[in-house]
Amino acid sequence: MHTETSLHPFFAPLGIAVIGASQDPTKLGYGLARNLVQSNYQGVVHFINPKAGRLFGRPVLPSILDAPDPVDLAILLIPASAIPQALHDCGQRSVKAAIIGSGGFRETGPEGAQLEADCLRIARSYQMRLIGPNCIGLLDTHLPMDATFLPPPGPLPGDVAFISHSGAICAAVIDWARGQSFGLSRLVSLGNQADVSETDVLSPVADDPFTRVLTLYLEGVSDGARFVSEAGRITRQKPIIALKVGRFASGQRAVASHTGALAGQDRGFNAAFRRAGVIRAETSEEMFDWARALAWCPPPAGRSVAVLTNAGGPGVTASDALEANGMHLAELSDATRLALGAALPPAASLYNPVDMLASASPEQYALCLRILLDDPGVHAVMAILPPPPMYTAGAVAKAVIPVIHSAEKPVVFALMGERLIQEAVEHLRAARVPEYRFPERAASALAMLARRAEYLASADEPKQVCCGDAREQTSLILAGYRASPHQPGAFLPVETLERILTAYGIRTPASRLAVTAEQAAGIAPQIGFPVALKIDSPDILHKSDVDGVLLNLRDQAGVIQGFNQIMDRARFIEPPVKITGVHVQAMADAGQDVIIGAVQDQQFGPLVMFGSGGTEVEGLKDVAFALAPMTQEEADYLLVSTWAGRKLQGFRNMPPVDRPGVLDALSRVAQLAADFPELAEIEINPLRVLPAGQGAIALDSRARLMT
Amino acid sequence: MHTETSLHPFFAPLGIAVIGASQDPTKLGYGLARNLVQSNYQGVVHFINPKAGRLFGRPVLPSILDAPDPVDLAILLIPASAIPQALHDCGQRSVKAAIIGSGGFRETGPEGAQLEADCLRIARSYQMRLIGPNCIGLLDTHLPMDATFLPPPGPLPGDVAFISHSGAICAAVIDWARGQSFGLSRLVSLGNQADVSETDVLSPVADDPFTRVLTLYLEGVSDGARFVSEAGRITRQKPIIALKVGRFASGQRAVASHTGALAGQDRGFNAAFRRAGVIRAETSEEMFDWARALAWCPPPAGRSVAVLTNAGGPGVTASDALEANGMHLAELSDATRLALGAALPPAASLYNPVDMLASASPEQYALCLRILLDDPGVHAVMAILPPPPMYTAGAVAKAVIPVIHSAEKPVVFALMGERLIQEAVEHLRAARVPEYRFPERAASALAMLARRAEYLASADEPKQVCCGDAREQTSLILAGYRASPHQPGAFLPVETLERILTAYGIRTPASRLAVTAEQAAGIAPQIGFPVALKIDSPDILHKSDVDGVLLNLRDQAGVIQGFNQIMDRARFIEPPVKITGVHVQAMADAGQDVIIGAVQDQQFGPLVMFGSGGTEVEGLKDVAFALAPMTQEEADYLLVSTWAGRKLQGFRNMPPVDRPGVLDALSRVAQLAADFPELAEIEINPLRVLPAGQGAIALDSRARLMT
Repeated sequence: MHTETSLHPFFAPLGIAVIGASQDPTKLGYGLARNLVQSNYQGVVHFINPKAGRLFGRPVLPSILDAPDPVDLAILLIPASAIPQALHDCGQRSVKAAIIGSGGFRETGPEGAQLEADCLRIARSYQMRLIGPNCIGLLDTHLPMDATFLPPPGPLPGDVAFISHSGAICAAVIDWARGQSFGLSRLVSLGNQADVSETDVLSPVADDPFTRVLTLYLEGVSDGARFVSEAGRITRQKPIIALKVGRFASGQRAVASHTGALAGQDRGFNAAFRRAGVIRAETSEEMFDWARALAWCPPPAGRSVAVLTNAGGPGVTASDALEANGMHLAELSDATRLALGAALPPAASLYNPVDMLASASPEQYALCLRILLDDPGVHAVMAILPPPPMYTAGAVAKAVIPVIHSAEKPVVFALMGERLIQEAVEHLRAARVPEYRFPERAASALAMLARRAEYLASADEPKQVCCGDAREQTSLILAGYRASPHQPGAFLPVETLERILTAYGIRTPASRLAVTAEQAAGIAPQIGFPVALKIDSPDILHKSDVDGVLLNLRDQAGVIQGFNQIMDRARFIEPPVKITGVHVQAMADAGQDVIIGAVQDQQFGPLVMFGSGGTEVEGLKDVAFALAPMTQEEADYLLVSTWAGRKLQGFRNMPPVDRPGVLDALSRVAQLAADFPELAEIEINPLRVLPAGQGAIALDSRARLMT
Repeated sequence: MHTETSLHPFFAPLGIAVIGASQDPTKLGYGLARNLVQSNYQGVVHFINPKAGRLFGRPVLPSILDAPDPVDLAILLIPASAIPQALHDCGQRSVKAAIIGSGGFRETGPEGAQLEADCLRIARSYQMRLIGPNCIGLLDTHLPMDATFLPPPGPLPGDVAFISHSGAICAAVIDWARGQSFGLSRLVSLGNQADVSETDVLSPVADDPFTRVLTLYLEGVSDGARFVSEAGRITRQKPIIALKVGRFASGQRAVASHTGALAGQDRGFNAAFRRAGVIRAETSEEMFDWARALAWCPPPAGRSVAVLTNAGGPGVTASDALEANGMHLAELSDATRLALGAALPPAASLYNPVDMLASASPEQYALCLRILLDDPGVHAVMAILPPPPMYTAGAVAKAVIPVIHSAEKPVVFALMGERLIQEAVEHLRAARVPEYRFPERAASALAMLARRAEYLASADEPKQVCCGDAREQTSLILAGYRASPHQPGAFLPVETLERILTAYGIRTPASRLAVTAEQAAGIAPQIGFPVALKIDSPDILHKSDVDGVLLNLRDQAGVIQGFNQIMDRARFIEPPVKITGVHVQAMADAGQDVIIGAVQDQQFGPLVMFGSGGTEVEGLKDVAFALAPMTQEEADYLLVSTWAGRKLQGFRNMPPVDRPGVLDALSRVAQLAADFPELAEIEINPLRVLPAGQGAIALDSRARLMT
């Protein structure tokens, strides 16, 4: 992987200057100096403090300007007001990387923000990169280097890296992980991110050969597109799990479409994570549960799990939990059952879950586990171990570890209990076998392994689908629209949008605007009966809300009557709206109706929506989102995760319709949204999907430009 | 509460005989004798073994017949084959309660099942109650009495009882709880339930004054109706939390309606738990997380929570988690903010979450907590404590405990970390303040407290709604149907079902059967145009599946053409079906369509369903279930938890319709299902709900009797 070399000094410094190193144990500068020394960092350490003296057996220098080579990383723990001068000193000493641990910047208000901007300016003037301010630093347990000021003990060496927007969460995670005997590889606290962001550190952390899984605590991302591209590249090699908070802080802004209304609430993040292969955890425990499994287990070849237990109850719990997590119980082969039967007492259950009974010995655990792992229909095993009545759990753990290490399938343990299983916990952790207190969490970890394996097996790229000169034509159409008088933020005129859709290869029905009933009656036969009438107004959000749509008019009399009816009703709309006329439109053949929409997400750009359309979109919420343009996997996801998509293949008396036609229309709308970020919202509702081979028609659509 | 007195000896024995007490430490009879003695049980203990001798300083008697008074509970840990004779001995010694710990019964096959039946017969002949066989026994930490054979240590005394269908889960829970310093009050392992069931022990366990919360591990219930009634009575006093497994083991049986197809997958259990006020946990950890909060906290007056933290990140996590759990952040009063401002540094955040900054002292935690608890808009507080950089977490815990104890609002703690917060954990546990490692779990516990408070505030009973002589009339109608020739399990004839619905006060449209097109054309004007035509056949499950419905026919020519069209199409149905004719039916006015159904659940009897109807019911899955007949709360739940119910109040251009009319129809269907358990399935699809005040009409319906 490629890493920007300017971040190297943060992760492999030759010499570190601790500016503000202090002899006072209540100061952060003391804690950092202590951790650096105690963590056994092998590079050169310079303590800097105008008071000079000695600290941890080393001299304290009055200024960084006095520090001899090498010194490529400075860590600043002095009052905020003194930071700018210290950065100048660092710059003059040719230091290219600085961590500002001190607070007192943007987080305190406008003055602090100004100070932070000053610091960034100074750093840039020396080509110096900054982590922080207002962070607890970083550490690497393998280098080793603990450049945080947290109270000891630091984390154990491990395989999982943690990158965090919150320093307090870092402190909690280090302490919690230590208590769980769960090791970390690297940890980075990002603070205010004046310069270096979560996206910047992804590559340097992923490059660490000791890091097998990256975990992130995110409060947002600095640059959506860059995050997706960086993370997406990394997840092909190493899993990334993110705990993204702020889910319910809705990005409030005016929206005029169903798509816009539904796109809030974090849909953009979900779509971006899906694209980038980033696994989203809902809770911190889930994140680290999954991280252990992903760090230590080979990928399973499928979702069939064998459960090995010494008691019935936990086996049932495990079966439930596996089903709930989208896994299923493997069907064991006859050979497997025969082998199990030879190894177990007659009353044991040889079907999955395999219940060896309470008398199961360590040897039986090991033997049966090997038998299950040898069954080609078994992709993974969950072994369950409540405190065994006759043996110690520790002895069972010791017996199974060689079997697990020689297998190429994942095995996870549900060690149920606490004290009586403690020895087993320690054996398994030391052997890098994931163990969980309850089968539910073990099942969730297995499901994540399966998901990861499926992700690695899929490898498609977003497709450019359109569309010759579609983009050029649309540029011209939009230029024309902008040049003509129009209200900012209003919907594009129907004709304009129809031309754009046509340019992108999306079919629309024949349609013409009538301003009088007579004109409508004249147009109708040219279009061909039956026709639909639709009110046309730049001010009306949803035509059916004002009863502005009439369908299936079969003759001229009906058209005249319908026209007048629509216009009569429109007079009562409050507040009054401008009515441009009524569209006379060809009726489409029977089929299934869906909605396709696109909005520009503030973080991640164009986002496309698919689902059940009509007027109840926002009530039914049968919709799904993906980044635009889409990969094939994403397009499929939109269709399989919605009822609207699933029923395209037919349901009861509903005949199957043109699924490829929907996928095609979806990709075209996605491409349009990606090509024209100035289109704030596009929505086709309904898209009528016709029988197989006949494609789909955008029966009604709207779009507006950014204001 | 009422307890069946025959179970008293299990929970308050005066003297216990351990039959099979053994000097061999590898025997269960040794473990049980040890636990009984070491648990400091104050009653008389008799050890029984033909080998005689001494055990734990006491004599071993050769037979229970030799045991002097008092002896009212026998615990049997001898080989299965010896149990019948031992039970005879117990009966002759006037023992009225026996726990059979030994396995070798029903769980091993038909022979064991026979032996189990023999044991039950013997016990009954002496009016003796049985717990087990194949169980680990029971314990009471307050009596005290440990009548299990599990390896020590047993659980700490506590407030939460645990009743379990799995002995292995008991062992795991005891060990886990001990490791978590989490106390139990009583524990009952039920084993094979030859006699005493989970429902039988609810009352005796709830009667224990030390038990504040009951937790259950259930693999099923023995008698659904009795469980609902017993549990429902208890939950008015003490919460019950159940972990019900076997969720995905679908109760396979033939169903012919949408309702039947959707009613599988554990819907009956959910409806029964809702009725009984039993809280359903998805995981073991969730169950005990909730149990602690329910045991130790007062009920909150609402769902507004204040979050008190010393760092921003965990505050955001907490806000997210509260929202995700249906709670919301309290808006703090001006007075509260003023008081907080006086207590905290200027950079602190005085809005909710209240961020006191990393410098927060134990005194500030205590003071700010008191300020928040004094705010009338705050119903509960979540305090967050990552390892504080300047103080110990233990000092914070000590400072806040008096504040929490003097408050009448719940306070839960998110103690983030492990080693550095261990002292705080111990203080809070000893003070009965619920603490969790992560804000997500603390939020879930607060939500459960709110739900419990809401449950206690609601107190309605299932309503008998109908309906004069509805039941009598329907009995006659069904008797007539049974007396006439009919195919078992077929749908009731349309006319029969219409008469039943009419008896129960459910409106149906005017409708008559025609067997020729001419007859149909003659009926139509009598009913009044426009009319609908519907195929009539005992063999057709869903009429629209075979295009057997035509709507809105406006004249006789249309009716003739329609009749012929339906009959023509019907000829091609495979396999061929018997066509009785075509119904000519009045068209209903415009409104909203919903589905109402009822099925007989194997466990819990009549179950009523409500939701989005039409042909896509099973795809959209916008349905909810409740036991029939319903309480007002349950009827409301059906409407608010489905989109079909929510949109009854109007949505966009959809006008509001007669919500009370739907509730009325729902209760009537529920009553019908409850009155006639022989009705296997009833389904109205659609029920057309008319504008306010005009009620609802069953446009199409079907029902069939149990086969």
